[in-house]
Amino acid sequence: MKVLITGGAGFLGQRLARRLLDEGALPGSEGRTQPIDELTLLDVVPAPSAGDTRVRSVVGDIAERRVLEDAIDPDTCAIFHLAAIVSGQAEADFDLGMRINLDASRQLLEVCRARGHRPRVVFTSSVAVYGGALPEIVRDDTALDPRSSYGMQKAVAELLLADYTRRGFVDGRVLRLPTISVRPGRPNAAASSFASGIVREPLAGETAVLPVDPATRLWLLSPRAAIEALVHGYALDASLLGDRPIVNLPGLSVSAGQMIDALRAVAGDAAAARVVYRRDERIERIVGSWPGRWDTTRAESLGFIGDRDFVDVIRAYLADDAPRT
Amino acid sequence: MKVLITGGAGFLGQRLARRLLDEGALPGSEGRTQPIDELTLLDVVPAPSAGDTRVRSVVGDIAERRVLEDAIDPDTCAIFHLAAIVSGQAEADFDLGMRINLDASRQLLEVCRARGHRPRVVFTSSVAVYGGALPEIVRDDTALDPRSSYGMQKAVAELLLADYTRRGFVDGRVLRLPTISVRPGRPNAAASSFASGIVREPLAGETAVLPVDPATRLWLLSPRAAIEALVHGYALDASLLGDRPIVNLPGLSVSAGQMIDALRAVAGDAAAARVVYRRDERIERIVGSWPGRWDTTRAESLGFIGDRDFVDVIRAYLADDAPRT
Repeated sequence: MKVLITGGAGFLGQRLARRLLDEGALPGSEGRTQPIDELTLLDVVPAPSAGDTRVRSVVGDIAERRVLEDAIDPDTCAIFHLAAIVSGQAEADFDLGMRINLDASRQLLEVCRARGHRPRVVFTSSVAVYGGALPEIVRDDTALDPRSSYGMQKAVAELLLADYTRRGFVDGRVLRLPTISVRPGRPNAAASSFASGIVREPLAGETAVLPVDPATRLWLLSPRAAIEALVHGYALDASLLGDRPIVNLPGLSVSAGQMIDALRAVAGDAAAARVVYRRDERIERIVGSWPGRWDTTRAESLGFIGDRDFVDVIRAYLADDAPRT
Repeated sequence: MKVLITGGAGFLGQRLARRLLDEGALPGSEGRTQPIDELTLLDVVPAPSAGDTRVRSVVGDIAERRVLEDAIDPDTCAIFHLAAIVSGQAEADFDLGMRINLDASRQLLEVCRARGHRPRVVFTSSVAVYGGALPEIVRDDTALDPRSSYGMQKAVAELLLADYTRRGFVDGRVLRLPTISVRPGRPNAAASSFASGIVREPLAGETAVLPVDPATRLWLLSPRAAIEALVHGYALDASLLGDRPIVNLPGLSVSAGQMIDALRAVAGDAAAARVVYRRDERIERIVGSWPGRWDTTRAESLGFIGDRDFVDVIRAYLADDAPRT
């Protein structure tokens, strides 16, 4: 079978690719495990091949139909759609966000429909689909009320995927990812970028800015757990999802202050002291509109597993990703 | 000021046009009442002018940008977007529904954004945005979970309008209309077409088919009340809507059986006996996914008024619309 990862050169895409290549197989259209013959990594920049002959890197704009037609053929049974314009950038550049987060997602579904082979498609969505006056605890069926263009675009993509699935054009599932922390590398334009920065930078001996009140609650998932969730979400039998193919993944509900406490527990006072509180109203407004507490009973009953505590998450980052000094 | 009605040749569009021409004025961009200098009726067929020099009929496909550019200029301060592909047809022809219910709605918002004059835009939406396992009583903030492509397309248009409003591209508001009953004329492709047919046809001496269980609850609004709601929803000051520009209108919650009882009360046993129960699973599935009971406290606090009872609705139909015999 062939597998496609959009955003395949990105952080999650690369990590998912390595995980799939290591595993070497995935459940196919009839649920039987099949070897992965080809793994296409589609992105706007070339994806590292990981030195594996099964990897095909396709460079192109996923909002262009011919790019998706090149990446998807009737043997492409598994599609992980991770490509996205992050929240801060989608708010700053409305047209770009619409083009990638909305139009490209729809185009991907359209190409699958045209191929007619009903592939299994995993979309990643986000806490940003929620907003406004939220209940104390958010559930899978809490009303969407996005307060950012990114959240609106993700909510629209969810509705599209659910209807394409209901109509039998694809076998789709949406995983609403908590904020991924700790991301390796450099800060990005996501409003939640600090949720990795306030751990990653101090561990590297650099200062980091906390732009929101330390009491602000975040809903976090480690890269390790995110990759396991993507693979598990793909492998789930559609019948288990019933007629709601959208799942809020289990995350850790921690405040920014608790994250700094965990950093202190792992790396000491000096590391924690490198976090500087400097309020940024724009980021606070976006992040503050996301919920911090969730009822993920459904995800857990479907077998999804979150992280145990944030100290473990930091230790996993040190083991997997932190630059060796 | 100039006013645009899309779907201006349709039943609601024509009735709204007459109402606006009679009134002669609407609140303008600063809230002051301004005379209506031009009323553009955009539709795929020519709209009757009502013999009024203020009326401009534009024939065109609203999914084409140039058609909307012709219909909207910087003096177009008021836009009522009523054009839509109805539920049954959108389910039967997926591409057509996407093109009109989704793409044209977005194009309309895009043309307004390009004009830069922030017009007041009223979208009509539908009970079909709801579905699945619903709470006993549906509220404005109950989660959207459409079970039809029409419902999905309307839900997407709502999300778009809310974000375009949040960003200041338009001053938008969405009115979720109950099923309109009693519509004059002939049956249409809406799954809810019978909700008018089981009254209209028996009153005209013809038989009508009830395709759903008589216990099925419907959520109804008369044409008279719908027009008043459109005008009221347009005139509302944006500040009253806060950051949720979407309102579930008050409707009548009646079962199909109670509708037939009301018909009997108005027109006698012979009329009621002309309704024949013949189950249609396709229609039952679509209509059965819509909620039948609502909490419309918010709409009422905003000054929207529904119908008092269905007997009155039938009498209003006889006064306003029933063919004279």
